[in-house]
Amino acid sequence: MAKVDVEKRILSENDRVAAENRGRFDDAGVLVLNIISSPGSGKTTLLEGTLDRLAGSLSVLVIEGDVSTDRDIERVKAHGAGGVQINTGGGCHLSAKMVAKVLPELDLGAADVLFIENVGNLICPSTYDLGEDAKVVLLSTTEGDDKPMKYPAIFHESSVAILNKIDLLEHLPYDAKRAEREIEVLNADCDILRVSALKGDGMDGWIDWIHRKLEEKRGRQR
Amino acid sequence: MAKVDVEKRILSENDRVAAENRGRFDDAGVLVLNIISSPGSGKTTLLEGTLDRLAGSLSVLVIEGDVSTDRDIERVKAHGAGGVQINTGGGCHLSAKMVAKVLPELDLGAADVLFIENVGNLICPSTYDLGEDAKVVLLSTTEGDDKPMKYPAIFHESSVAILNKIDLLEHLPYDAKRAEREIEVLNADCDILRVSALKGDGMDGWIDWIHRKLEEKRGRQR
Repeated sequence: MAKVDVEKRILSENDRVAAENRGRFDDAGVLVLNIISSPGSGKTTLLEGTLDRLAGSLSVLVIEGDVSTDRDIERVKAHGAGGVQINTGGGCHLSAKMVAKVLPELDLGAADVLFIENVGNLICPSTYDLGEDAKVVLLSTTEGDDKPMKYPAIFHESSVAILNKIDLLEHLPYDAKRAEREIEVLNADCDILRVSALKGDGMDGWIDWIHRKLEEKRGRQR
Repeated sequence: MAKVDVEKRILSENDRVAAENRGRFDDAGVLVLNIISSPGSGKTTLLEGTLDRLAGSLSVLVIEGDVSTDRDIERVKAHGAGGVQINTGGGCHLSAKMVAKVLPELDLGAADVLFIENVGNLICPSTYDLGEDAKVVLLSTTEGDDKPMKYPAIFHESSVAILNKIDLLEHLPYDAKRAEREIEVLNADCDILRVSALKGDGMDGWIDWIHRKLEEKRGRQR
């Protein structure tokens, strides 16, 4: 069987399981955000700051995807979130099936938001639907302003792009407007937020975005 | 056919073509370095600084791998290198076959060093031999000091790890010793160099490393 046929079959099987996941998320009324970026763009740091800011207003769960180690789930648990770590053991992305397998460990009915932090990879995770309501792509300023056009698929697929590490802008040869223009060309519907997850700049806008998406979802379900 | 069988067949076919590439590289006496990192770790900036420093002493060719755009080959050509761009069109790594296909465009016999800049991805390229003499992994300080253990395969496979962007160390919560210790645990034979490709710090050590590897290869071939 040709490689491309096998890939097609894997993707259509993934879509089937993703639809099942989506049904379970919708039944529970939980907003699910699939967070994607290169290694080290700040996904876990963004989650830490997000958990601190949502504490007391929303109930949050986290699924952490990594090739190896349980470092990230330990970090988010230290900020009060329940959740579970998935190790792919070399795999370059989460699949809908990996997510389905850990759902019994999570009390979805008691949660408002489930964050799924994907494996650090700007390419492969863009192809695999996990059943999420929206994909969130992070791009840190230190990665350079030319990246959207070089990795277009994930920007096509995402509902919001977070330009992270804006606190380092003054030390970098980086044109934030160029990166934002490229994202707009690739996907006019993609919201863009400038954030420093570490220092806190722009985090209010991100928290508002989450609340708005949750209300939109609940509005559709009423 | 199961996914794992197909993957095995693809990898063994890749190994066969990689061995052919290696034969052609050895016949030409050209040192081939396969440069791997996340998007935005500074592979192309490292190449730009390397080309400037090798000009006049070694003849250099470059193969640029990217999902999309020809931005990187334009950048290295502006620094005097001959070379060719490969666009994978969504593919997450270069394969030996992709490299074999462009070799007729390169005058290997006239070159001392061929740099192959892989697609920006810290996971998938580690599995695909291209026929290179050595893999070079870049990890930039802005990606965090916890990454080697989270992405272990590429550190297992590499002959040298370049900690790039050390000029930003004073602005970051980053423990370079921790990253280096993790690399040593994963691969005691891996050389480690601290570099700022942008500012030039540590570039002499990297240039020396290339000269040493080229002499070792020619020594073996005599």
